[in-house]
Amino acid sequence: MNERALVRQLAKHSPRIGDDCAIIPHGREDLLVTTDQYIEDIHFRRTTHSAADVGWNAVARGLSDIAAMGGEARHVFVSLALPPWADQRWANNFFRGVRAHGVELAGGDLGHAPQLYCDVTVIGVCPHGKALRRDGAQVGDHIYVTGPLGKPRKRFLPRLKIGLTLRGVASACMDLSDGLSLDLARLCEASGVGAELGDIPMARGATLATALHGGEDYELLFTSRRELPHFRVGQIVARRGVRLNGRTLKPQGYDHFQ
Amino acid sequence: MNERALVRQLAKHSPRIGDDCAIIPHGREDLLVTTDQYIEDIHFRRTTHSAADVGWNAVARGLSDIAAMGGEARHVFVSLALPPWADQRWANNFFRGVRAHGVELAGGDLGHAPQLYCDVTVIGVCPHGKALRRDGAQVGDHIYVTGPLGKPRKRFLPRLKIGLTLRGVASACMDLSDGLSLDLARLCEASGVGAELGDIPMARGATLATALHGGEDYELLFTSRRELPHFRVGQIVARRGVRLNGRTLKPQGYDHFQ
Repeated sequence: MNERALVRQLAKHSPRIGDDCAIIPHGREDLLVTTDQYIEDIHFRRTTHSAADVGWNAVARGLSDIAAMGGEARHVFVSLALPPWADQRWANNFFRGVRAHGVELAGGDLGHAPQLYCDVTVIGVCPHGKALRRDGAQVGDHIYVTGPLGKPRKRFLPRLKIGLTLRGVASACMDLSDGLSLDLARLCEASGVGAELGDIPMARGATLATALHGGEDYELLFTSRRELPHFRVGQIVARRGVRLNGRTLKPQGYDHFQ
Repeated sequence: MNERALVRQLAKHSPRIGDDCAIIPHGREDLLVTTDQYIEDIHFRRTTHSAADVGWNAVARGLSDIAAMGGEARHVFVSLALPPWADQRWANNFFRGVRAHGVELAGGDLGHAPQLYCDVTVIGVCPHGKALRRDGAQVGDHIYVTGPLGKPRKRFLPRLKIGLTLRGVASACMDLSDGLSLDLARLCEASGVGAELGDIPMARGATLATALHGGEDYELLFTSRRELPHFRVGQIVARRGVRLNGRTLKPQGYDHFQ
């Protein structure tokens, strides 16, 4: 089963699904709510990631979603299922990684599983109607990313501060979790436009292939009519599809269901 | 590692942990947020629970937490990691079980895992300061449960409507997820009191042992000064500990970490 089919199935009954976070109007603000799983041998290996790395990244994924909507992160909820190899010391270090973000740990659930499994919910806020969406890109907009691509780090920094500066500036925004080619195709599809890519900023050690199709960059991808001090990677056009220097780019990013 | 040690560790950095939900003041209301895991071979077996049962119960646990705080459930977020045996049909039926509660499915995350793993976040609301807590039981209060105990059903009904009627009526409240003896000990500990139990209402097929120590009843356990049309099981006293007909009752409910 591929992810798109399942997400469509989920979205049928859930009009809020499609952006990085659900937008829930409450009083004078909108609540932004996001949920992300972080699973052993799918998202990390315990041989390469320390307990604190796992705690950090599990939360960073949700914070990145809040950043992509231009929100402020307020509360983190961590559900954790521990396998037999994870002892008290591992759990302590995991929570050290969680807390290092400085966002309030407001709750969670603890359990057992044969493999380490973690699910994080982050609640953020933004002024009503001001959340950045995927579907606002306009023909003629510049396309930007907030950093060089293609070399996932062991820990990544959610772009919360940059996200705040994009409110009222970006016409569309999302975070790069599954690779530029796939995520940009999603943004274009949501906005009903296409994209022409040019210069792709590459991280040290990256190749053009990993910069285009590698997942887990967690930089922000956004569009704006303005010229901005970020990495300009191309322009929004009317013709559907994503092209690099004139050639159609097949989305090849990381689909967790392929 | 036992659950209490880990929860204490979690609670050290999270002042909101201790009740069934985190209470987050927002505008004129309090948000109630709860997160519950539902894991194959820990909470259910696929040989005995249909996909729709799993979807129903995974969400029902969170709704029961909202009920225990006297809240109204508003939004459900479902994270689901599917093992190879779970096909599209299974997932469809799972979401049928989720939706059967009639609470908006507002988001979620999908992934893979060797074993079926599900984590549900429920967001509810109640008027500011009106949430039912565990720590308000007073000496002399009656102790009630909302139904007969000791016979978990394949599907249980979260007591949301009864929870609403207990606002301003119950001095303390929680849901019975781990068995009366353990959960009442927790309520008494939070309130700084003790309890004398008398008549225990037993479900058909239950024994006194399963009624006292069996988990997953998901009835509400609450205290009140008033006489109420619920099952009265005892009285709050000053002397610490929980006693049944004068004999100390060792908490033996289900601790997921023992």
